[in-house]
Amino acid sequence: MELNELSTPVLWADIDVFEKNLATMSAAWPGTSLRPHVKAHKATRIAARQAEIGHTAFTCATPREVVGLAEAGLGSDILLANETVDPSRLKAMAAIDGTATVAVDSEATIDAAVAAGISAVLIDLRVGFRCGCAVEEAGPLADRARVGGLDVRGVMGYEGHAMGNLDKAERVRLAEGAMERLTRAHADVGGDIVSGGGTGTWDINTTVNELQAGSYILMDTAYTAQQQPFEQGLFVQGTVISVAPKYAVCDVGLKALGMDHGNPSMVQGEVRGCSDEHTVFVPHDGASVGDRVTLTPAHIDPTMAQHSTLVMVQGHNVVDTWPIDLRGW
Amino acid sequence: MELNELSTPVLWADIDVFEKNLATMSAAWPGTSLRPHVKAHKATRIAARQAEIGHTAFTCATPREVVGLAEAGLGSDILLANETVDPSRLKAMAAIDGTATVAVDSEATIDAAVAAGISAVLIDLRVGFRCGCAVEEAGPLADRARVGGLDVRGVMGYEGHAMGNLDKAERVRLAEGAMERLTRAHADVGGDIVSGGGTGTWDINTTVNELQAGSYILMDTAYTAQQQPFEQGLFVQGTVISVAPKYAVCDVGLKALGMDHGNPSMVQGEVRGCSDEHTVFVPHDGASVGDRVTLTPAHIDPTMAQHSTLVMVQGHNVVDTWPIDLRGW
Repeated sequence: MELNELSTPVLWADIDVFEKNLATMSAAWPGTSLRPHVKAHKATRIAARQAEIGHTAFTCATPREVVGLAEAGLGSDILLANETVDPSRLKAMAAIDGTATVAVDSEATIDAAVAAGISAVLIDLRVGFRCGCAVEEAGPLADRARVGGLDVRGVMGYEGHAMGNLDKAERVRLAEGAMERLTRAHADVGGDIVSGGGTGTWDINTTVNELQAGSYILMDTAYTAQQQPFEQGLFVQGTVISVAPKYAVCDVGLKALGMDHGNPSMVQGEVRGCSDEHTVFVPHDGASVGDRVTLTPAHIDPTMAQHSTLVMVQGHNVVDTWPIDLRGW
Repeated sequence: MELNELSTPVLWADIDVFEKNLATMSAAWPGTSLRPHVKAHKATRIAARQAEIGHTAFTCATPREVVGLAEAGLGSDILLANETVDPSRLKAMAAIDGTATVAVDSEATIDAAVAAGISAVLIDLRVGFRCGCAVEEAGPLADRARVGGLDVRGVMGYEGHAMGNLDKAERVRLAEGAMERLTRAHADVGGDIVSGGGTGTWDINTTVNELQAGSYILMDTAYTAQQQPFEQGLFVQGTVISVAPKYAVCDVGLKALGMDHGNPSMVQGEVRGCSDEHTVFVPHDGASVGDRVTLTPAHIDPTMAQHSTLVMVQGHNVVDTWPIDLRGW
């Protein structure tokens, strides 16, 4: 079957680009030195392919991702790189077939992990703009975790403020400042793991011994603007449903896209705006009702989360359909 | 069970506000003079309640909404207020237990409807910024549809450019201009139905004989800013997971929100930013890990589409959980 025969809107990935991106990252961060972030794709089939080439340890943002990965047989070493004090979800993660390590950054998160039977943690450092403790809190928190019976495997810190910067020198400066703090905390915490980084710092973060990159597999227009060697491989195909004298309308709307990084780009025209089920665009070379159009999402993570399936395409042909089965919480 | 006992993030609605909003709109637009738009909620249980008080005809934006409503026994008179040339989806709508009327605005959409066995259409007028034909095209398109055997039930036009305007006088001016064009087209097209309008023009659109409002049921911060009598009744409850000296972080991120109208608002603080699974905020009165927080989405439609369930709450108590079962296409 050809992609053009499918009903739209349809989320699809170029499998050759996907494989090339996997290989490029794997050459730089082989095996478990890469701990792929599944929040970028939320698909166990993609995770299974990452595991197949050696990346058998994963990073997650939600308990649902942790439990779902384990149910798919990929639970040998999963990190929840996020805090939670939810007893039922902590217990569900503690009960997976495999090992769930959770991030903690406070006495409350440590105590909740202990109470739920979690076995291992990383101390999460505030090196960016989000969660994490201060450097001077890391050692005492590690002590408290060990007293509680937890295996403190090391530290993590996500330099999120550096990640999207288009100026590489500035990315380096921000990442180095963040990683200097992570290194100081690691000296106090101990453990084997220093985890962090992402697609925006894959080539400049020299501190972590496992990289939490996720977006690199299929990219988006925000990351592609950084001139990374990873190629854009994720698209939403739509159909032109209405043509006005000065614009045309296709059936891909904001419910099929992640909009937090702005409007999608289009191959066939210039996007003027998106509403729930429509994108209005000015075609480069005219448009007719029924024409197929290709939209490039600005942000991969929330775009994937809007769809229940990802169609894998080679050339024009559909080679497989993978469920996006780790949605929700 | 109390709302505070549920795992977060959790989408919930205040059932008393919901009932009050239903009653306010129903008093102004009773029975089938209101054709509620289900794209705002995508939940058959909400649609069933609307039907129970007399609104038995519905507006949809996607074929999935049409087919799903009919499967729930609500198919007696459904309008797809949108264009499609997808043969399989048109055939699925033609086959529902009930009547599907589809919007058409071109020869191609009419021909596709005829070919798929659709029985009834509305001629969609370009009175806003999206789909629709020009006024002078409406009559000839109606003729073509009738030659093809379609029941041309009338016209529709969505004055979307007026809908979000905060200045009521300007909303009136824009809506009147749009409805003047719809009225001229109706004279050429014939049929009983003049359909259009929405929550932003419910009290100023005096042209349509059926109003396509949807958001009024639970509202959002964008519409609430218009000082409408409908109250905000849709929220996402989250849990504080990390506290820094100058801010706190909760577990409601942009994957749990519609972000196209901007950041959510918060009862307990000022929102600084959202990422995939986090909102960073400055608390009004401090925050502790484990605290529950309440976020108000900026846009109801895409927020509903991010969740699989809606928890109905009265006071602090969970009274029901309704599936959001019309997602996708």
